[in-house]
Amino acid sequence: MSTLDSHASGCPPLVAAAPFSEGERDAFYRVLRARRDVRSQFLPHDIPEEVLQRILEAAHSAPSVGFMQPWDFILVKSPAQRQRVAQAFGRANAEAAELFTGEKAQQYRRLKLEGIEQAPLNICVTCDRQRGGPVVLGRTHNQSMDLYSTVCAVQNMWLAACAEGVGLGWVSIFHDADMRDILGIPPHVEIIAYLCLGYIAERYAEPELQAKGWRQRLPLADLIHHERWAGGAEK
Amino acid sequence: MSTLDSHASGCPPLVAAAPFSEGERDAFYRVLRARRDVRSQFLPHDIPEEVLQRILEAAHSAPSVGFMQPWDFILVKSPAQRQRVAQAFGRANAEAAELFTGEKAQQYRRLKLEGIEQAPLNICVTCDRQRGGPVVLGRTHNQSMDLYSTVCAVQNMWLAACAEGVGLGWVSIFHDADMRDILGIPPHVEIIAYLCLGYIAERYAEPELQAKGWRQRLPLADLIHHERWAGGAEK
Repeated sequence: MSTLDSHASGCPPLVAAAPFSEGERDAFYRVLRARRDVRSQFLPHDIPEEVLQRILEAAHSAPSVGFMQPWDFILVKSPAQRQRVAQAFGRANAEAAELFTGEKAQQYRRLKLEGIEQAPLNICVTCDRQRGGPVVLGRTHNQSMDLYSTVCAVQNMWLAACAEGVGLGWVSIFHDADMRDILGIPPHVEIIAYLCLGYIAERYAEPELQAKGWRQRLPLADLIHHERWAGGAEK
Repeated sequence: MSTLDSHASGCPPLVAAAPFSEGERDAFYRVLRARRDVRSQFLPHDIPEEVLQRILEAAHSAPSVGFMQPWDFILVKSPAQRQRVAQAFGRANAEAAELFTGEKAQQYRRLKLEGIEQAPLNICVTCDRQRGGPVVLGRTHNQSMDLYSTVCAVQNMWLAACAEGVGLGWVSIFHDADMRDILGIPPHVEIIAYLCLGYIAERYAEPELQAKGWRQRLPLADLIHHERWAGGAEK
């Protein structure tokens, strides 16, 4: 302990670490496997305040480079705001559909890719690139580390929502400038994720894009290399 | 079900979704809160194959844009490879230290920021930007979505390691070109994270940078906005 700087709170800085019990690990892994990117199964009733608080606390307990905690959470509930976002999605999605050809284009148009207006709550997660000042421990050689920290917060939130029975879908089909305008986001703040949240009674047993034949799961063994890169998996 | 495309496996595509039990949620949230960025507490013994497999499967069950699964995992165990990486870290860290001044510079130099050689296993997690072809569903308007998917895999892996009693530390202080050279990573593959893993007997009760007085946790309430951006938190 002598190498530590003064510790303000008086708590012991180090505590015992051990594997969680088999039952606890099993619960944890079941949450990971049950998480889906939800677009269509949202129920209309509100998420209670204490449940939302636990989901946001899960996000806030994510790791961050230099303990920067660069994230902010814009909670969007008003129908007018969600309608504006849905329109921005619609414009971008029409553009995206044009990029696919043949059978894939038809398949793309059949997919429902957002639940912006169906889900009772949307959350925009952002990254404030100026938080913590110009020099951030651990970000000097990789300027994307604060963006990645914010993604870790999104993933924590996604898993927590799943544990709470709340579906979450990540919408990435919009022009950044449109979302920035609708939500009043300043230039030094990066939009990382626009999320739709609401209770669900059903979920896909496997990823929806797999269930719908868009793309299949790759064998994990093909993605593991030893000591050095050894060629890529199938494209 | 009539809107679904043909489903190859014969499993029901939709299954019941419900909140996990209070005990299961409690276990899940305790894993989230126990996760630390580990640099110094690694024990030397190997991680058994079945534990490593569960950790990698957790990563592989992460969400990915267009179900692209762009991640690869390079397992680095050889002392010679880890020594090369440690040297690359050392050079970059000396540069980073120069960017801090006064008390912060002294404090920075006292921090141990990696466990590359102490941890028995290192894993480099990469993102293959060509996987899935040139047009990826959901990446058209945000070209970073595949990078973010890979970060979700890292965060899943980090939490799974914690549940298994395995510490994990994310090293971001190196020149990309150095790591690319050491691991033979081709240009179309982006390095997302270099991780050090090993069992730990002790962990920090709170984030190490907070325990050591580098930076404190921000109040969550300051990071929540309603309907629109409402000004940033303290810098």
